[in-house]
Amino acid sequence: MALIVQKFGGTSVGSIDHIQNVANRVIEEKNNGNDVVVVVSAMGKTTDKLVGMARELSTNPSRREMDMLLSTGEQVTISLLTIALNAKGYAATSLTGWQAGIKTEAVHGDARITDIDASIVSKEISEGKIVIVAGFQGLAEGGAITTLGRGGSDTTAVALAAALKAEKCDIYTDVTGVFTTDPRYVKNARKLSVISYDEMLELANLGAGVLHPRAVEFAKNYQVSLEVRSSMEKESGTLIKEEIDMEQNLVVRGVAFEDDITRVTILGLSNSLTGLSSIFSLLAKNHINVDIIIQSITESNPASLSFSIKNEDLTETVKILEKHRDELQYESIEWESQLAKISIVGSGMISNPGVAAEMFNVLSQNQIQVKMVSTSEIKVSAVIDQRKMLEAAQILHDAFELSGKLVNS
Amino acid sequence: MALIVQKFGGTSVGSIDHIQNVANRVIEEKNNGNDVVVVVSAMGKTTDKLVGMARELSTNPSRREMDMLLSTGEQVTISLLTIALNAKGYAATSLTGWQAGIKTEAVHGDARITDIDASIVSKEISEGKIVIVAGFQGLAEGGAITTLGRGGSDTTAVALAAALKAEKCDIYTDVTGVFTTDPRYVKNARKLSVISYDEMLELANLGAGVLHPRAVEFAKNYQVSLEVRSSMEKESGTLIKEEIDMEQNLVVRGVAFEDDITRVTILGLSNSLTGLSSIFSLLAKNHINVDIIIQSITESNPASLSFSIKNEDLTETVKILEKHRDELQYESIEWESQLAKISIVGSGMISNPGVAAEMFNVLSQNQIQVKMVSTSEIKVSAVIDQRKMLEAAQILHDAFELSGKLVNS
Repeated sequence: MALIVQKFGGTSVGSIDHIQNVANRVIEEKNNGNDVVVVVSAMGKTTDKLVGMARELSTNPSRREMDMLLSTGEQVTISLLTIALNAKGYAATSLTGWQAGIKTEAVHGDARITDIDASIVSKEISEGKIVIVAGFQGLAEGGAITTLGRGGSDTTAVALAAALKAEKCDIYTDVTGVFTTDPRYVKNARKLSVISYDEMLELANLGAGVLHPRAVEFAKNYQVSLEVRSSMEKESGTLIKEEIDMEQNLVVRGVAFEDDITRVTILGLSNSLTGLSSIFSLLAKNHINVDIIIQSITESNPASLSFSIKNEDLTETVKILEKHRDELQYESIEWESQLAKISIVGSGMISNPGVAAEMFNVLSQNQIQVKMVSTSEIKVSAVIDQRKMLEAAQILHDAFELSGKLVNS
Repeated sequence: MALIVQKFGGTSVGSIDHIQNVANRVIEEKNNGNDVVVVVSAMGKTTDKLVGMARELSTNPSRREMDMLLSTGEQVTISLLTIALNAKGYAATSLTGWQAGIKTEAVHGDARITDIDASIVSKEISEGKIVIVAGFQGLAEGGAITTLGRGGSDTTAVALAAALKAEKCDIYTDVTGVFTTDPRYVKNARKLSVISYDEMLELANLGAGVLHPRAVEFAKNYQVSLEVRSSMEKESGTLIKEEIDMEQNLVVRGVAFEDDITRVTILGLSNSLTGLSSIFSLLAKNHINVDIIIQSITESNPASLSFSIKNEDLTETVKILEKHRDELQYESIEWESQLAKISIVGSGMISNPGVAAEMFNVLSQNQIQVKMVSTSEIKVSAVIDQRKMLEAAQILHDAFELSGKLVNS
């Protein structure tokens, strides 16, 4: 008898009917002869509604109190799902984060799980029960309720799977798996049957949005096999695990893209030694998320520097930089908005150094100008004109034969 | 510096505006130089909405899961009220039942508080914070969330006041206090400035509905001074405490009434010895609430027996009695519906045995026939025709001079 952890997100439990559907998926797994632990999020728009009420009372509500407020969302779902399972004749019990022994840092709104006392859930399983655990929440030392931040329920599921040494953690969502690229925009996008943790991490960070990077990291660290699959359809999803049979593998396994990017360039930076760290410390302190950073190639003084940010952060970024102009010692700032980032991802790149060149070649053949480049061992990203983004995604998806038969399936 | 416990019910916290109003009442008390602990219920119709969702999933949801579900209601209120207080510049912190150290029996839906670890709340108070505690809920041994049943938030407030040795427990509600009778129906009903625990207990049991009897009992056992007052208006309410200056007191302090009562009579009960206990065990087992019981005065055999129930329980009661006719050994059942119970309450009755006689005298002078009578040390109840109920209430209220100047004020 294997132990399976299942996770269902907010959309999957968004109504009473949806909860009935989830109950049926849980029962299927139980009837397969498995022990089942289920992690659920708050129902649909519950969190937004609670946040709305708090905002009516305060522009800056305490994060401790927001955790107290928001953690009720999952607590409602766990009891309703348990009631649904009981009504269908299955023994089940619900546990909040603190009841399930999920310990976190004493940080509100974005805590990390520090420990799980698996004995509590194990005891309920040993009594034959299906155990329903509230995702997204835990208990800090001192007894306060904490929440895990975005993607928190994914993390709860993976952490529980690790603590319980589960055979598998199934992440049920509104898509059927991880695709070679976004099927809404690119023809012939294919569902991958398997993908490595590192590839998934790059895709997650690039906005594929299926799984939160923190959950993938956690799964990688504890070697938890994940499967991303649909809560509405029966087909199998995408398995995420460490080892992939490389022979079946293409070098490039996915194309990710993201728009609304601005490139900011700082010219005439007289102190290139301390300038870099001063600028990015300043932006980080103001919660501006900087993605790609490129310093001028020559070691000339004054140097210049480019970095990419989200369009929405441009006004604030310029304001901050201008305010600290004297201290940062630069001549001028330039920027270009309406850009996009397109990336190819694949573990095979490590042993295939020509992949980046091929990407640039394909883009150049199609008159798509590359404005910034960033590479990691298993990813190449290029910043291009936003209007060319979908075209570039389609061209790269075709060029690297991602829709072809060679994708493992 | 005194410690005051304040309790606000569901109507008082039914909207964001109402929560703002509650925050202002709390701040007033704090600004008076007092330490303040606040107990709140779930917002308005929240509990009904949660129950509705559970009922969609099951006709008979587990009581453990219902407690898990319903306890989220108060948790939402405590965080919102704390956010409101913070926004107004006051240090405050919210605590769920389990966080506040409220221990209960391991019974779901109707648990009794067994112990409170006051050190947790005391520590927050000592740091200068207003402490907001979720009413109606606690923690059973083993770690399950429990709820206290009807009037549970009143009980939480009184129990906390006892554990913290608070100077006073203020119960804020939608009425301005305890009245000599129901002011919606009886002219010249007067608010009492003070009433004893026992009198309040009788009035609470008689459907005055202001305070739950369990909370009053708790207050009496631990000698907690209560005040029932309005959350919307500033006037002082009714103080409930042990000792009342009897010289200021009238013998009768209140007139309570309740309609929709049926009298059931069992005739020809051949085994009067065991019949009584058999009948009432049977009815109790079937959750039929029996109020007044009268056995035939003569010791004739077969005996007869009358008791009063709510109209709504009549069909079920007759069904049960007929099903067990052979075993109970009686000849026939009769009943009369559309009756009402009218009661006079007052500690002064203990030393004034003529009060019951005066009540019957007044009723008889007004051609109101008494069909059943029940008395306790501080209460006399009569069952009468329902159509005469309000008339009787007015007559008794006048006869015992409850609207007069002698009521302490």
